[in-house]
Amino acid sequence: MKFVANRDDLLNGIKIVERATVVKGLQPVLANVLIETVGTNQIRLTATDFDFSIITLINADVKSEGKFTLPAKKLGEILSRLNDELINLELNDSTATITCRNSKFDIIGISANEFPLVEENISDTDCMEIETRPFTKAIREVVSAAAGYETNSPLSGVLCEVNKNILEMAAVDGNKLARVREVVKNTSSDGEKPFEMLISSKVLSELLKISLIANSETIKIYKEMKKIVIMIDKTKIVTRLMQGQFPKYNQFIPQTFSKEAIVNKNDLISALERVAVMVNEKNSIVKFEFADNTLKLSGDSPEAGNSQDELDVKYMSEPLAIGFNYKFILEFLKIVESEDITIKLNSSLSATIFTPVSDEDYLYLVMPVQLRG
Amino acid sequence: MKFVANRDDLLNGIKIVERATVVKGLQPVLANVLIETVGTNQIRLTATDFDFSIITLINADVKSEGKFTLPAKKLGEILSRLNDELINLELNDSTATITCRNSKFDIIGISANEFPLVEENISDTDCMEIETRPFTKAIREVVSAAAGYETNSPLSGVLCEVNKNILEMAAVDGNKLARVREVVKNTSSDGEKPFEMLISSKVLSELLKISLIANSETIKIYKEMKKIVIMIDKTKIVTRLMQGQFPKYNQFIPQTFSKEAIVNKNDLISALERVAVMVNEKNSIVKFEFADNTLKLSGDSPEAGNSQDELDVKYMSEPLAIGFNYKFILEFLKIVESEDITIKLNSSLSATIFTPVSDEDYLYLVMPVQLRG
Repeated sequence: MKFVANRDDLLNGIKIVERATVVKGLQPVLANVLIETVGTNQIRLTATDFDFSIITLINADVKSEGKFTLPAKKLGEILSRLNDELINLELNDSTATITCRNSKFDIIGISANEFPLVEENISDTDCMEIETRPFTKAIREVVSAAAGYETNSPLSGVLCEVNKNILEMAAVDGNKLARVREVVKNTSSDGEKPFEMLISSKVLSELLKISLIANSETIKIYKEMKKIVIMIDKTKIVTRLMQGQFPKYNQFIPQTFSKEAIVNKNDLISALERVAVMVNEKNSIVKFEFADNTLKLSGDSPEAGNSQDELDVKYMSEPLAIGFNYKFILEFLKIVESEDITIKLNSSLSATIFTPVSDEDYLYLVMPVQLRG
Repeated sequence: MKFVANRDDLLNGIKIVERATVVKGLQPVLANVLIETVGTNQIRLTATDFDFSIITLINADVKSEGKFTLPAKKLGEILSRLNDELINLELNDSTATITCRNSKFDIIGISANEFPLVEENISDTDCMEIETRPFTKAIREVVSAAAGYETNSPLSGVLCEVNKNILEMAAVDGNKLARVREVVKNTSSDGEKPFEMLISSKVLSELLKISLIANSETIKIYKEMKKIVIMIDKTKIVTRLMQGQFPKYNQFIPQTFSKEAIVNKNDLISALERVAVMVNEKNSIVKFEFADNTLKLSGDSPEAGNSQDELDVKYMSEPLAIGFNYKFILEFLKIVESEDITIKLNSSLSATIFTPVSDEDYLYLVMPVQLRG
């Protein structure tokens, strides 16, 4: 194997695929990236952790064909320290030699035969093409509400549904729920049939990062019984379709509210961060007291002391005291772009909705925590 | 105790003294800062880890006198989240209440009686006043060559000597030595007698950071048998004078060299960082080969592979191959401001000197490592 490629192309390719490598795992080859020549002017990079694989193509001038695996981290370190010039890579037995101007590196690798086979072929019976921008915006808005992916439960996934030209995405765990709806141009293989999938929040987080490097106006998604393939520009992500029942989350969202507050987002962030200095670290409860166009926040830490802050808000309903884990609220506030947010309430024990004033198609539901005393 | 102070003044004061606090130590009070009113318009902040204490004064409008200790970290967090406005602090039994606009914090503290006494009084028999700028420049240039302070050996200290108007500072461990000489205006209590002290490199590193916050053209240093007090602006650092024999380091520095290279600093940094991707992580050896106006660098890692790089330099002497721990060289290169540096050599086993071309009063001596094969 021998080829010449641009430093930036090769480094970007490594940055994209290395998210699927397994560092310090039982199989050393999983820390490596598989490099294969494709014809005379492309090479293909693959990394996998079995559950999740990333494959990308980059332009190269292939001098002789072949394949080999090299440690992704070392390769990234070397490339990031070289200037953007032409990189020569040549394979000799168990080492690949990279040369660039006055620099030369012999890197010890592992034979391509030891690299696991990635099942990437898919029939295009169930396929959808969607615009990148609304799709990644929706991911950003809901992904933090999913349960940790170490739980391996359906709640660690995000439900995506495209029905005609409406994309709905939702994530939910025991304490919070995020739902967003976006109008999209959707070209599915069967435009009438809704396209639905439950996909790991980890994979979607990686897709977000890849979408910043890869440059593509649309994303194609192929779905089979057990597998999903996502194509963005020259990059392909292969992951399993999550199994199990996702909750019928829409029924958790109250339809009517007896109380409503409108709050400046940045004021609320600052006040919450101040009050949070003095909360019980076990439950992170901040008490919200709404009354007569003011919102009083307070925290109480058994060891450190207590804290209070007050904001001017729009609130004309009956007074209400309600407790929240402030971290969930900050998570939402740091995602929304709107200057003001609406808080929709019923009682101190009912699900509460946080939504940007400018975009009610995005909502964050937070379950309150019971206040003592 | 009750006072009003500016947020910025109070926060800067906390930032200065908190470097001496002990977090998660056996004595909880050492994580706290002692706050005392001084007359009607100042308060005094003190923190100590017994070995090393920092005391600073800030302006305040004292309403009623008193003293108390509060957790430095919490206090810093609270102040950093408030805007720069007037802060009210009032003591009630075991809590101090801070109010600022709409924010209020009750912070649990510890009685001032539990705070250790800091022996800060000093006779001014042996005292020196020195300009801040050359003094801190010298610290920055030598402090990284000292042995780790966990060793508690004299080598973890920095030797400072002022003789008439020459400041000499040096640090040395088994592998490297840094020495700098600066011309200073020196006002010592006895201008004829050299002023010499061995002071912990940790304390000097903290002094560097404090000098960025405190604003003072000169630093005063008082020396007693066992104690040193450093005054910078309204801040006082109290530390013990280190005991033990510091090596006569000047005799380690060769006077003549048979070979000399002049190397561009940034080129050498880039090449070293590239080659360092492939070094043995146990000894960090990079081989330097000087010959005929070129410098070839190479690294070799038993697991990962090897690396080579070549630079154009000025070198007209006989060829020489010599090995160094590249980390020591990078440490020096990242401190110096000079565009080019001089490397003065004798043989592959002799002490080698690195010095900025523009300032030969600063030198870094590195002992080479024997190369195999």
